[in-house]
Amino acid sequence: MLIVQKFGGTSVGDLDRIANVAKRVAKTRDEGHDVIVVVSAMSGETNKLIEYAHYFSKTPEREAMDLLLSSGERVTSALLSIALNEMGYPATAMTGRQAGIFTDKRHTSARIDHIDPIPMGDAVKAGKIVVVAGFQGINPDGRVTTLGRGGSDLTAVAIAGAMGADLCEIYTDVDGVYTTDPRIEPKAKKMDMISYDEMLELASLGAKVLQNRSVELAKKMGVNLVTRSSFNDNPGTLITKEENIMEKPLVSGIALDKNQSRVSLKGVEDRPGIASEIFNALADESINVDMIVQTIGADGKTEIDFTVPQSEIERVKTVMERFKESIGEIEYKEDVAKVSIVGVGMKSHSGVAAKAFSTMAKENINIEMISTSEIKVSMVIDEKYAELAVRALHEAYELDK
Amino acid sequence: MLIVQKFGGTSVGDLDRIANVAKRVAKTRDEGHDVIVVVSAMSGETNKLIEYAHYFSKTPEREAMDLLLSSGERVTSALLSIALNEMGYPATAMTGRQAGIFTDKRHTSARIDHIDPIPMGDAVKAGKIVVVAGFQGINPDGRVTTLGRGGSDLTAVAIAGAMGADLCEIYTDVDGVYTTDPRIEPKAKKMDMISYDEMLELASLGAKVLQNRSVELAKKMGVNLVTRSSFNDNPGTLITKEENIMEKPLVSGIALDKNQSRVSLKGVEDRPGIASEIFNALADESINVDMIVQTIGADGKTEIDFTVPQSEIERVKTVMERFKESIGEIEYKEDVAKVSIVGVGMKSHSGVAAKAFSTMAKENINIEMISTSEIKVSMVIDEKYAELAVRALHEAYELDK
Repeated sequence: MLIVQKFGGTSVGDLDRIANVAKRVAKTRDEGHDVIVVVSAMSGETNKLIEYAHYFSKTPEREAMDLLLSSGERVTSALLSIALNEMGYPATAMTGRQAGIFTDKRHTSARIDHIDPIPMGDAVKAGKIVVVAGFQGINPDGRVTTLGRGGSDLTAVAIAGAMGADLCEIYTDVDGVYTTDPRIEPKAKKMDMISYDEMLELASLGAKVLQNRSVELAKKMGVNLVTRSSFNDNPGTLITKEENIMEKPLVSGIALDKNQSRVSLKGVEDRPGIASEIFNALADESINVDMIVQTIGADGKTEIDFTVPQSEIERVKTVMERFKESIGEIEYKEDVAKVSIVGVGMKSHSGVAAKAFSTMAKENINIEMISTSEIKVSMVIDEKYAELAVRALHEAYELDK
Repeated sequence: MLIVQKFGGTSVGDLDRIANVAKRVAKTRDEGHDVIVVVSAMSGETNKLIEYAHYFSKTPEREAMDLLLSSGERVTSALLSIALNEMGYPATAMTGRQAGIFTDKRHTSARIDHIDPIPMGDAVKAGKIVVVAGFQGINPDGRVTTLGRGGSDLTAVAIAGAMGADLCEIYTDVDGVYTTDPRIEPKAKKMDMISYDEMLELASLGAKVLQNRSVELAKKMGVNLVTRSSFNDNPGTLITKEENIMEKPLVSGIALDKNQSRVSLKGVEDRPGIASEIFNALADESINVDMIVQTIGADGKTEIDFTVPQSEIERVKTVMERFKESIGEIEYKEDVAKVSIVGVGMKSHSGVAAKAFSTMAKENINIEMISTSEIKVSMVIDEKYAELAVRALHEAYELDK
């Protein structure tokens, strides 16, 4: 097998940990696999470099920032290569450029355009472990770019896709993906498998294990993604195609997002285009609107409810000022939470949403908004009931079993 | 004018110092000059990275070392570029690769093969200050290389040569080149000008301001080199063609090398090739022989005297064992010093060497070996008289005037 292994900042946080990573990579090699390793900067390094830059400028030029920020991953890749060679495992370190990672021109938030499989492929064929500096590539001008948050994960997934790897393992400091946040529900269980779509819903709903960009790319390229811990040998969670998942539970997990505020526009003029005007105005201010629910009341007037991140609420109020002529009444509720149940099993089973609603009713929790998709039911509730709702749903769907 | 300015590790040792460097570069720009800046890693960074590598291996693979070591200069170049842009001076940071610096294949001690003047030239034409990461280039395989000790100086000189710069300023923590070591002779004076050849002699004789590789390259490319301090506005010392130096003093400076041992081979068989055998044997062991003096005694036997670095003396003894059949007697004197007077003025004046010998005689210092070149007289003496000899010669040639 060809396995891509990615180790994040805490996994390579100091020299001892890099030595441990070398042992883990060597073990994978001993098992007979070809290995391409992708590494992040040692934890703290990137923040230190950002602080350095901010000493000189609040808005440092992006091209220089990329040159600056890409250096941390280079250091880790060189050190891991040195460690592996010393242990008798031939290895070669590659920068993003040397690994053939081509991006678009957007400095500090570039997107991978394509990967030239030749340099890494040749090294693997020559029996070497390839150690790639993550988070970086080069743009069409030959300048170094970085990929933004979660960039090293993206590097690993894109390499796995381009090289046709059998597995892409993302090592972090958690064991995998849980049925819900274990800090809220101690009975939460690590999942063995989950589909890309479920992972995408869970991630966008607050599960911090993987960035959506990486999961989306894995889905697009059909990469089998495993998220696991670099501090133990637990098997982690496989994120894969729905077809590969044999036993599909009704509900896979419960997600919670407490960083939500609700805006209710009552008595909105019922004329064409009014909703579009409002949401375009919010989009122009880069305000990220999440759930939107629209109903038409008995009086022929429209009610529009939507949620935004709590941090944006003041800016929403400013935008809404412009529309006060067209809206009867505007209500803001800053402290709401979004609780979601996610599972591909829902598609083929009825009554999944009904069970969620009845569970809320049993706990006397008022549901303020509902939004559903094929594999998700999201409910907006008062923030003070958030943890109670999560635990009740976790039990109702028997996720601790 | 186009001016290349190089700032070493102590000059960019912390963020405040980088800010000071930015001010100095900006001032040069304000004076109407085009500027290309070459920077080293922040002091301590390179040593830290070497320590990291040695944590994993005593003999880290050289290719990974180059990837590792080149990162420090990248950080400094990015930060200085950010600082300059923030101050309103358009700047662009370039790695060795981006600056078009091509080297041979020797990892960790590469030599610059050629420089493509286009990328830096285009940026200068566009009105930008170019900030180049020193000490690095790429080899024919496209891999990052580093240039070894004094590598950033070399980068600066090579760029000045390739770009036809009017001046190459090397900023360090000393004011320039002195007539002798001021710690030995407080009356030592900073020279305004000195020829390449004199600088080469002084450097190889122990003046630590510049590495010989850089001076040699400057001579070869006809680069006007200035060594000055980054901590004050003193004008420094110009190192240039002999023709450019108007007033040529008889003697420019006195150099001292206390790290010398003397080996005397007495009664050596007078047969062809014996000297060649001995010195080839030493060369095979990479023992750096400095002065060699050979005389033929009245008995037809040869006496050969030579000096080696003190640290090599044990290894010399081992090699000499092989020749004991052919040599009557071998004498080792471990603590000798080499005092040298250097000056292009010697060429056209007789009596310069004679004055040195009489000065030694006046101080009752026995001269054990003498070696002369066109612009240099070196004398080996007992180490305990080293400082006395330097002060006496400094006065005899009126270098304090």
